[in-house]
Amino acid sequence: MAASLKVGVAGLGTVGTTLVAQVVRRHEVLAARCGRAIEVTAVCARSRNKDRGVDLKKMKWFADPVELARDPGIDVFVELMGGAGDPAKRAVEAALSSGKSVVTANKALLAKHGVKLATLAERNRVALNFEAAAVAAVPIVKTLREGLSGNAVHRIYGILNGTCNYILSRMEHERMPFAECLKEAQRLGYAEADPTFDIEGHDTAQKLAILASLAFGTRVEQSAIYVEGISSITPADLMAADELGYRVKLLGVAVKTPKGIEQRVHPTMLRKDSPIAQVMGVTNAATIDAEGLDPLTLVGPGAGGMATASAVLSDIADIARGQTGAPFGRPIARLAAVRKAPMQRHEGGYYIRMLARDKPGTAATIATRLAEQEISLESIVQRPHLGEEGGEAKARSVPVILVTYATTEDAVRKALAAVGRDRVISGRPQVIRIEKN
Amino acid sequence: MAASLKVGVAGLGTVGTTLVAQVVRRHEVLAARCGRAIEVTAVCARSRNKDRGVDLKKMKWFADPVELARDPGIDVFVELMGGAGDPAKRAVEAALSSGKSVVTANKALLAKHGVKLATLAERNRVALNFEAAAVAAVPIVKTLREGLSGNAVHRIYGILNGTCNYILSRMEHERMPFAECLKEAQRLGYAEADPTFDIEGHDTAQKLAILASLAFGTRVEQSAIYVEGISSITPADLMAADELGYRVKLLGVAVKTPKGIEQRVHPTMLRKDSPIAQVMGVTNAATIDAEGLDPLTLVGPGAGGMATASAVLSDIADIARGQTGAPFGRPIARLAAVRKAPMQRHEGGYYIRMLARDKPGTAATIATRLAEQEISLESIVQRPHLGEEGGEAKARSVPVILVTYATTEDAVRKALAAVGRDRVISGRPQVIRIEKN
Repeated sequence: MAASLKVGVAGLGTVGTTLVAQVVRRHEVLAARCGRAIEVTAVCARSRNKDRGVDLKKMKWFADPVELARDPGIDVFVELMGGAGDPAKRAVEAALSSGKSVVTANKALLAKHGVKLATLAERNRVALNFEAAAVAAVPIVKTLREGLSGNAVHRIYGILNGTCNYILSRMEHERMPFAECLKEAQRLGYAEADPTFDIEGHDTAQKLAILASLAFGTRVEQSAIYVEGISSITPADLMAADELGYRVKLLGVAVKTPKGIEQRVHPTMLRKDSPIAQVMGVTNAATIDAEGLDPLTLVGPGAGGMATASAVLSDIADIARGQTGAPFGRPIARLAAVRKAPMQRHEGGYYIRMLARDKPGTAATIATRLAEQEISLESIVQRPHLGEEGGEAKARSVPVILVTYATTEDAVRKALAAVGRDRVISGRPQVIRIEKN
Repeated sequence: MAASLKVGVAGLGTVGTTLVAQVVRRHEVLAARCGRAIEVTAVCARSRNKDRGVDLKKMKWFADPVELARDPGIDVFVELMGGAGDPAKRAVEAALSSGKSVVTANKALLAKHGVKLATLAERNRVALNFEAAAVAAVPIVKTLREGLSGNAVHRIYGILNGTCNYILSRMEHERMPFAECLKEAQRLGYAEADPTFDIEGHDTAQKLAILASLAFGTRVEQSAIYVEGISSITPADLMAADELGYRVKLLGVAVKTPKGIEQRVHPTMLRKDSPIAQVMGVTNAATIDAEGLDPLTLVGPGAGGMATASAVLSDIADIARGQTGAPFGRPIARLAAVRKAPMQRHEGGYYIRMLARDKPGTAATIATRLAEQEISLESIVQRPHLGEEGGEAKARSVPVILVTYATTEDAVRKALAAVGRDRVISGRPQVIRIEKN
């Protein structure tokens, strides 16, 4: 049997300690599966004295991750520190430059510096694996990188953030407002004390940037992504969606259009019979539409210590077996620049909920403004209970829900701006894009 | 760039011709993704003159697949002829023995001779890849072989046959009897003229044999599988399932139990909120339960020319990239013999539907027989419409539906045999096992 693969782990939080424990516990199976043993020989973390519940005595201790990354005693550097900047970036660069393969769960780092790091990996002929940076234990990176080599991908979309999906699921299930569900999620440890990164869609955007690159053979470019979070969604929207046969999910969507590649993160109405509309709670899911194939959907745990450690370990096992494909599925020189399709030109159906002032001519005004932009309506619903969150100030307003046929973002924005100027509605209209399955 | 990978394809049906066309059409992308070009240089089929809509002029023609398999001009032999015996077996053996990697979509061959062929591959240090033999474009083989290296699998279960799922979906949706839905499936090309292989569960069993081996590191052994088909399922069962919160699916299930590994194929009641209960029509799906992880579910096209060709091509691409792992995930010497858990000792909940004779004492007799076997009941439903397929002969019978708490197969069989001897029911009771998600 070949010499064992020596792994250095930087970052000993939940994922790091779970990983170290799994490598020990699964030692024999891993050796059989990979044709060589895997051992963690060195670690690095902030505090040496903390009891982490795993035996680190036989491992070399490093206080500086960059030093660990350069340690000639390791073959693979596992980066679990997080953060788009240093020390994670410097350590990963040091490892790649000194000819070590890298496994990382760091989506921020890849979304920002993915191309640069992949270039370094390519130049040094080492692996840069990051299954855990996308949807943790759900093998979406492997599926895009290796499983679908033969079919062009048209679209990938998914629930890439468990916090948002948990909140939306609770809001729908218990008709509780967003703020309350967020508090619940925080109490249960599903949301951070500062939840902005999750609920405003940035976490989803980072993962989408990585997946879009793998799907379309383009350079990772987080800045090309249009991002909207879920904080404006109300139980009234979820109830209306339900009545219309939809469910609201925060999706990351990357799709090839004649105008370029659209990459967007926003609350989305999905038909209830689509596989990912049925994914509730913290579970993640992604659907891939590829040429000539019915959709392929992967559903599973997208976060958590074991789920993330599992993905990291499968990346390490690939390296142990000698699988060192290109990080983004093709050589860097073959990754195309993203031709960004502008959001204004997005085409699709729209759900629009507004509080219309209850006076003569309001309906006619709204209808006229939509018609001016050539927006056709699939349905109009006007029912008191659909806007039940309204307070005293809205007492004489009537909730109106419109579902449009395919139109453009630009047309919708212009029509709603005109309706706003006409002073026939109270507050801002709620707009949710509809994604076809 | 390295020399191109030369592929010989035996079998030019829908999958073979789709594959040949895809290799040409995706030539450039494949070369970029694999670091070397892929070309089909030789083919073999029964009739040379048939117009298959693809240009075969530049390819070497073989009338004998074994000769193609031995052709020194090819690196990879793709077997798409099907069948557990010769010529497929002899051709695959010839290819492996002469140092060529093999990609096959042939589940029958693998279920029967998987260990033998994998041994030959191992001895010759070549790849034997078979993603297409399980769930076609759904990357379940890759996920089990590579994606979950770090976590022990407890259970894998899935909808592995589109014909059966199509028939059950239609039966449920349109309350049409089995025979009629089968005819519809035949008319639409979803079922063969002789549908036995699909509807009696044998196709599912072959796929399950392959997946169980990958999941548990055991030797492929189709004979260890308990198999029951769907032909006895009635619309009344599907309606009763619906009322009880379940859906009926033909599942392949492989699960580790203290008594050994259970491998079984049978109609199964699944809670409607489980991801695979929601998979309708010809779509396939599989769920993997692994230690410490929430379930991972893959849903997608499990059959069809493009779906199968896509899986074959991703297997070829892996070989082009130099990825040649062990066919069943570990060396043959490390594959354990299956310790088969006998079906009689299966534990779980049961759905039982019987036509009880409408006379005093019937309910007491049935209850007593179940109690004798220590079977506890979760629910009892007795309602006329639940057995509406009954004819004149059953006019004085009342459909009774029982759902048991966890018990054993043995206890259920004994209790029902006793009820039968008591002459309180008409016909045979319907028994459907409940699978927990």
